[in-house]
Amino acid sequence: MQAISVGLLGLGTVGSGVVRIIENHQDKLMHQIGCPVKVKKILVQDIEKERSVKVDPSLLTMDPADIIENPEIEVVIEVMGGIENTREYMLQALRNKKNVVTANKDLMAVHGSELLTAASENGCDLFYEASVAGGIPILRSLVDGLASDRITKMMGIVNGTTNYILTKMSLEGLPYDSVLKEAQELGYAEANPAADVEGLDAARKMAILGTLGFSMKIDLDDVKVKGITEVTEEDLQYARQLGYTMKLLGIAVREGDKVEICVEPSLLPSSHPLASVNNEYNAVYVYGEAVGETMFYGPGAGSLPTATAVVSDLVGVIKNMRLGVNGHSMVTPQYEKQLMDDGEMSSKHFLRLHVLDEVGVFSEVTSLFAKHQVSFEKILQMPLKEQGLAEIVVVTHRASLKDYQTILMELRDLRVVKEIKSSYRVEGSVNR
Amino acid sequence: MQAISVGLLGLGTVGSGVVRIIENHQDKLMHQIGCPVKVKKILVQDIEKERSVKVDPSLLTMDPADIIENPEIEVVIEVMGGIENTREYMLQALRNKKNVVTANKDLMAVHGSELLTAASENGCDLFYEASVAGGIPILRSLVDGLASDRITKMMGIVNGTTNYILTKMSLEGLPYDSVLKEAQELGYAEANPAADVEGLDAARKMAILGTLGFSMKIDLDDVKVKGITEVTEEDLQYARQLGYTMKLLGIAVREGDKVEICVEPSLLPSSHPLASVNNEYNAVYVYGEAVGETMFYGPGAGSLPTATAVVSDLVGVIKNMRLGVNGHSMVTPQYEKQLMDDGEMSSKHFLRLHVLDEVGVFSEVTSLFAKHQVSFEKILQMPLKEQGLAEIVVVTHRASLKDYQTILMELRDLRVVKEIKSSYRVEGSVNR
Repeated sequence: MQAISVGLLGLGTVGSGVVRIIENHQDKLMHQIGCPVKVKKILVQDIEKERSVKVDPSLLTMDPADIIENPEIEVVIEVMGGIENTREYMLQALRNKKNVVTANKDLMAVHGSELLTAASENGCDLFYEASVAGGIPILRSLVDGLASDRITKMMGIVNGTTNYILTKMSLEGLPYDSVLKEAQELGYAEANPAADVEGLDAARKMAILGTLGFSMKIDLDDVKVKGITEVTEEDLQYARQLGYTMKLLGIAVREGDKVEICVEPSLLPSSHPLASVNNEYNAVYVYGEAVGETMFYGPGAGSLPTATAVVSDLVGVIKNMRLGVNGHSMVTPQYEKQLMDDGEMSSKHFLRLHVLDEVGVFSEVTSLFAKHQVSFEKILQMPLKEQGLAEIVVVTHRASLKDYQTILMELRDLRVVKEIKSSYRVEGSVNR
Repeated sequence: MQAISVGLLGLGTVGSGVVRIIENHQDKLMHQIGCPVKVKKILVQDIEKERSVKVDPSLLTMDPADIIENPEIEVVIEVMGGIENTREYMLQALRNKKNVVTANKDLMAVHGSELLTAASENGCDLFYEASVAGGIPILRSLVDGLASDRITKMMGIVNGTTNYILTKMSLEGLPYDSVLKEAQELGYAEANPAADVEGLDAARKMAILGTLGFSMKIDLDDVKVKGITEVTEEDLQYARQLGYTMKLLGIAVREGDKVEICVEPSLLPSSHPLASVNNEYNAVYVYGEAVGETMFYGPGAGSLPTATAVVSDLVGVIKNMRLGVNGHSMVTPQYEKQLMDDGEMSSKHFLRLHVLDEVGVFSEVTSLFAKHQVSFEKILQMPLKEQGLAEIVVVTHRASLKDYQTILMELRDLRVVKEIKSSYRVEGSVNR
């Protein structure tokens, strides 16, 4: 039985993990795919560098052509990261009829459509399970397990850094800045944390999940993004007092043919399964018409989980090669993308206001909501230490984003409203 | 491209769902496996009966031989339930080199080893994803996603009826009997609820999960079982007060080469992801050495989720047929089973005692624990309404089951101990 030859682009921690797994699990791989797997060439930046994994030096190369133009190599595994060069290599590999496995979410979020189209045109697979949440087999589950179902909603905690920060803020009552600093010291957040805390990393993953779950080409620009930099301890306290937990949620909703994709700090009932996903863990909650509600939970990153996901994809690709069905995976979008407008998006909202502590203010504020037919699920009013001010916290029933934004605008114009302190989406009610 | 012919044993709600999915998703199936799938024959008890699904009457038969002896049929789907007859049909189908997909947990828990051996000897697949928790692709994840990992522990809420009862008791403070009655009226519990409330159904699923996750032949008799019939409202109250939630947990632990499998009402920290799995939902928590902690959550039963799981298995079987790798699935146990003894099993324990309300009693009780080197994580002591008695609730640190049982025995012999009210396993600490 002839071995399948594989080429690796990159030999960092994930790449080394992949090499190690392929070596150590030859028997298991044989059982699953019916033939041996062999690493043929590995692209590295420096051949001389010391490495944690033992690799035959003759496998290493600094020339990408040794892999992407190599007629013996049938599968290319991309674990080098980066965007523009990497895109070029992958396109060239696909044009040369090589199947590709990647762990690169940045690349897939930005150039996913182009790459998947190239894969399909060349009859090749492009698998990218490791790009979303390495430790959770979520993409495979969306494609396989839920293949005969219609997915109507996905909610994901898909960024470990922000989940760690919100968990710490919430459990220990600490402010954002100090928790971020601690996270940076512990290595949970990067020196420049913008991509995480401003929601961009989560948005990339939601673009990938949305594309796959709804079978539409969701671009990164389609994802509305709001990060966690303005979340305060007070917000978290009020949330808890009302029975909610705050999470940076990626939300993808489909109603009829239209979809909404966003990433924003949102409140979930504390009894909701996603509310217990703490620290650096990730989870994706999926609503399917047939299967109902399912959730996948696990480590979001880490070199071993990611390498494990890459090898699982490799097994899938090789099975398809032997079946002769490469390039037909369900990842090719089937529907035309149609985004909801503000009048079509709807959710519950949490709103915190500072108002003048005068007679009639409460009724003035609430009548403004009534005018727009938005009713309340929960209301809190409290005096503030600051002289002459009171605090109002409300959770509305479901309202369209358009109506809610009109209400916010009109509230700002009221003399009695001193400041709109915060506003968050509220998710996770039973009926949705 | 020649179609793959499939025979169904049974056409109840799950069977009808399978037929419907195969008909409605021919295109998706083609994409996944590269050839059409055709239902050739269906075994029913009554050909004349009216059915919710439209089926060509010529497909129906009352003779199992039309399926299991039919040379044209390559895959048999068993959705008829039952044990002895069904076992015979499945063995015969396997001997005739037919691959089999089943949703029958009772059968797999009792005769799984025999059937899997027969499958392997005949070079056939026997897939049974739908037998554990229909809405959760847990078996496939254990076999595929975690294939290159070593699983050290699984904890599962794998019975919807008992989870519904415990959730209601806990949230509404109602006694077991009245919640069970309500559950029966609502159809969540059967008229004879023994298999559910006494833990047998969960034990069957844990035998299947243990066999697969640890790659050992775990028999139903290997699973220690304790049901929820003796759980009281007081236990749930104390649990909550100490920060725990009670669940009927299936627990499978591997340490070195030895394993422990049990089903028993257990306490979890309320912040643990499994603690939020409420009502009829199921979830399986898996610890893998490489991937870390993952959890799969979803509906435990229901005809649509189960039918969806059966079709997913069918796709897997057909892929393997076309690859020529049937009969090599990872489900064939690789290790010899070695069960832990009482000295090797260890966990934390929750214990509730009634003692005489006298000077020195507390120290007498605690010194008994100290004698066996078992220390406490939490202690509560309260006077009781009943004259002259006090209540002591403790949570121990990790202790061997043998030591703990010795302590229980010695406590019973103490004059000052009036009654041991309850004792539960405590799970879900960070380090395990």
